[in-house]
Amino acid sequence: MCKGPEVEGELGQRGTSQLLINFKLHTQPFSLFWQQPCCYWPINIMYVSSRPSSRSELWLEAFGDHEFLCSTSHEHYGRPCCVPREDVLTGGAVVWEDVSEVGSSLSGIINAEKSEFNEDQAACGQLCIRRCEFGAEEDQEWLTLCAEEFLTGHYWALFDGHGGPAAAILAANTLHSCLRRQLEAVVEGMVALQPPMHLSGRCVCPSDPQFVEEKGIRAEDLVIGALENAFQECDEVIGRELEASGQVGGCTALVAVFLQGKLYVANAGDSRAILVRKDEVRPLSSEFTPETERQRIQQLAFVYPELLAGEFTRLEFPRRLKGDDLGQKVLFRDHHMRGWSYKCVEKSDLKYPLIHGQGRQARLLGTLAVSRGLGDHQLRVLDTNIQLKPFLLSVPQVTVLDVDQLELQEEDVVVMATDGLWDVLSNEQVARLVRSFLPGNQEDPHRFSELAKMLIHSTQGKDDGPTGEGQVSYDDISVFVIPLHSQGQRSSGH
Amino acid sequence: MCKGPEVEGELGQRGTSQLLINFKLHTQPFSLFWQQPCCYWPINIMYVSSRPSSRSELWLEAFGDHEFLCSTSHEHYGRPCCVPREDVLTGGAVVWEDVSEVGSSLSGIINAEKSEFNEDQAACGQLCIRRCEFGAEEDQEWLTLCAEEFLTGHYWALFDGHGGPAAAILAANTLHSCLRRQLEAVVEGMVALQPPMHLSGRCVCPSDPQFVEEKGIRAEDLVIGALENAFQECDEVIGRELEASGQVGGCTALVAVFLQGKLYVANAGDSRAILVRKDEVRPLSSEFTPETERQRIQQLAFVYPELLAGEFTRLEFPRRLKGDDLGQKVLFRDHHMRGWSYKCVEKSDLKYPLIHGQGRQARLLGTLAVSRGLGDHQLRVLDTNIQLKPFLLSVPQVTVLDVDQLELQEEDVVVMATDGLWDVLSNEQVARLVRSFLPGNQEDPHRFSELAKMLIHSTQGKDDGPTGEGQVSYDDISVFVIPLHSQGQRSSGH
Repeated sequence: MCKGPEVEGELGQRGTSQLLINFKLHTQPFSLFWQQPCCYWPINIMYVSSRPSSRSELWLEAFGDHEFLCSTSHEHYGRPCCVPREDVLTGGAVVWEDVSEVGSSLSGIINAEKSEFNEDQAACGQLCIRRCEFGAEEDQEWLTLCAEEFLTGHYWALFDGHGGPAAAILAANTLHSCLRRQLEAVVEGMVALQPPMHLSGRCVCPSDPQFVEEKGIRAEDLVIGALENAFQECDEVIGRELEASGQVGGCTALVAVFLQGKLYVANAGDSRAILVRKDEVRPLSSEFTPETERQRIQQLAFVYPELLAGEFTRLEFPRRLKGDDLGQKVLFRDHHMRGWSYKCVEKSDLKYPLIHGQGRQARLLGTLAVSRGLGDHQLRVLDTNIQLKPFLLSVPQVTVLDVDQLELQEEDVVVMATDGLWDVLSNEQVARLVRSFLPGNQEDPHRFSELAKMLIHSTQGKDDGPTGEGQVSYDDISVFVIPLHSQGQRSSGH
Repeated sequence: MCKGPEVEGELGQRGTSQLLINFKLHTQPFSLFWQQPCCYWPINIMYVSSRPSSRSELWLEAFGDHEFLCSTSHEHYGRPCCVPREDVLTGGAVVWEDVSEVGSSLSGIINAEKSEFNEDQAACGQLCIRRCEFGAEEDQEWLTLCAEEFLTGHYWALFDGHGGPAAAILAANTLHSCLRRQLEAVVEGMVALQPPMHLSGRCVCPSDPQFVEEKGIRAEDLVIGALENAFQECDEVIGRELEASGQVGGCTALVAVFLQGKLYVANAGDSRAILVRKDEVRPLSSEFTPETERQRIQQLAFVYPELLAGEFTRLEFPRRLKGDDLGQKVLFRDHHMRGWSYKCVEKSDLKYPLIHGQGRQARLLGTLAVSRGLGDHQLRVLDTNIQLKPFLLSVPQVTVLDVDQLELQEEDVVVMATDGLWDVLSNEQVARLVRSFLPGNQEDPHRFSELAKMLIHSTQGKDDGPTGEGQVSYDDISVFVIPLHSQGQRSSGH
């Protein structure tokens, strides 16, 4: 490990504290932005740790054997130190370790070199949500806030870019801020015994609490709503930013947030999060691909046929039809069908299908492998004016894991990873790897990081790998391993 | 029990055999239509049993203490006998027993007298699907067919009407025929080892079987597709029939089909089917109401705002907003949200909500309590031109129970019932009633019928009822209890 340039500074005691470090790795710029009260770091090329218990200190470390340029701008009030490190894995892989007290999260990212720049991006950090009193003016002066005035949580996010890394980088830089803003807008409802009908807490109708009760609205629904709105807001920001800078692209987004004893997992795309416990493997997200969302996509084309501009057929067939199929009865399904039937092939059925291909090869309008994600506002089918966006949604699905209700074991973890991992490893295979690795490494403080590394390693086709199955993934891979035990402890400690 | 008019006839040995009996109960006409090869009976006011093993006989019995007129039209080839019987339960209840070898199904129907005529309708019977050889001309002459040329199954259906019984009666008269037609159109694919890409069995592409394999298309997907298409076709028939006869109304539809060792349950509306076994209660359907389908409905209004004609707001609030709420931040959710957030109330938010109310009171466009069903083509919001139909779907959700894979016990049953039952009894309560009733009545050949009766009885607020909880249902109720054991035996016997 070689030591790189160090940047030092002091953390401001009051006022808006922020730190911006711009990295340049080859020609790709990375920025590291830290702002109180939301501690956050895009960690694509860097390892970051922070000890929020003493908020006057901030350590930054960046690992990698790349030449890089490190500069700071604005005032910086921390004591960051950037440490480049040799690659641990072949194939452009970079592994980060986070032994901080913040998120106790670990991540590994491998660049499959599909593109010059890594299209996988990640971010994690502490989420500090400022609480304001009911009725407090929104534009009141920023006050010196003590820890008790924040609601703190933790945030992990993986973004898998396509059409370049631009959208993924923007998402890694932006989504946490959107989420913090959305959460701050509803935080008083979140901390109430029951979210009030009116955020002011004032009852317009005496039976307002009863209406809220009957709808079953709980504090966690406000976090779910905040995540859903944050994705929407971030998508709009990315759309504006890409248009302004003449860039293109999109990305999937998988976000985990630990807040008030619960883990929220929001997913738009084909990344995946699973819970692995001694006797349980539980998916915490579902994938959104042209295949899994076929009926929604066909339904939209049925309601709005103009979206296909007469170039595509809405119907699904087992393969693309050709002239020889004309007049034959072939298998098909339409928007209202989960099952299959036969139809007599007409000329219009020979058009390119709205959704074509199968499994990893399935494509929306022949263009996109995912049906949800951020960005892609300008994306059109090659040589046409047909837009992907109305079929492509930025809406995540949010699942909630009530961590406080689990009898947590030391080795209960959440594994979040981009599709590169799940292409070659099933949930059960990952669970087996987790269970075989952790018990033998109980003393290793880096064991969760080593586990993330090992998971990536076992996708690189090494026959001597832990599964001995020699699977090979040719995609970028990012993995977070989040030990739940420390989250649960932190939650119950508050 | 008093004996009623008998109708006798002979069953034709060849040619199209059909029998139509028109009943008139008070002023409401009922028709009973039997046609080979699909044995089928609308059983709203009658008990029907058929012994298909000797297809030259058909017994019909109608129970009820009502005066009725029985007449036959067309040629009839059966030996039907219609036997009215006293009501078993109060409140206009009629109970049917089916001890036939056909479906071993039992049903009870109670008319809550919400309307002059019972809006609950039911149908059950044997489903005989004619097999034709690959390449056989479709319009070939109807041949004398022996039993082996049929694929036989069983069919049970419940329809809960609204706006009058017309749609429910039409559905009970029609859906089975639509289903038979849809199944016959794909039967050669269903009985193949794997459904062929081309119904003719001819391979246009050498790798066609591989495409079908990769899509994972199985015989059961053709049954699912047939059910989905049958619902759509039946909905169109009802639309035409109601328009032609100047009638209105709609109905929910819950259908169970036992075919080739599997039980298919198709549901559009708020009826429900559950599997009750010794150690298991499994829902076999989901309800489709404005609440459960909120996001789909809001999404449609988002894509097509003109559908609301400026009269409704797409947003959901805990209650209808009023002038006092203007400018306040209140709880809301939009189409992209499963969670809740707060928004500042504007004037347009004071409009009537697209979906309003909660639980049993939730209404689509202030009009309809279900979001899926058959009929309602003409239904508009009162005093407006706003149609329900684009929001209301006729598409069922189909679930498959692999009965052959279950280690069936004598007392494993499927309970199908309209919402009147589920309003007051949970799945677990019904399961408890089933488990407490059946073991003590093992010798009773009518025990499944008695169970259906008892389930209905326990919704009539009798404190001495088996649950002792005194729940009262004020809705029509229909119940089928289907013992799976005899289905499984019949299946394995083939």
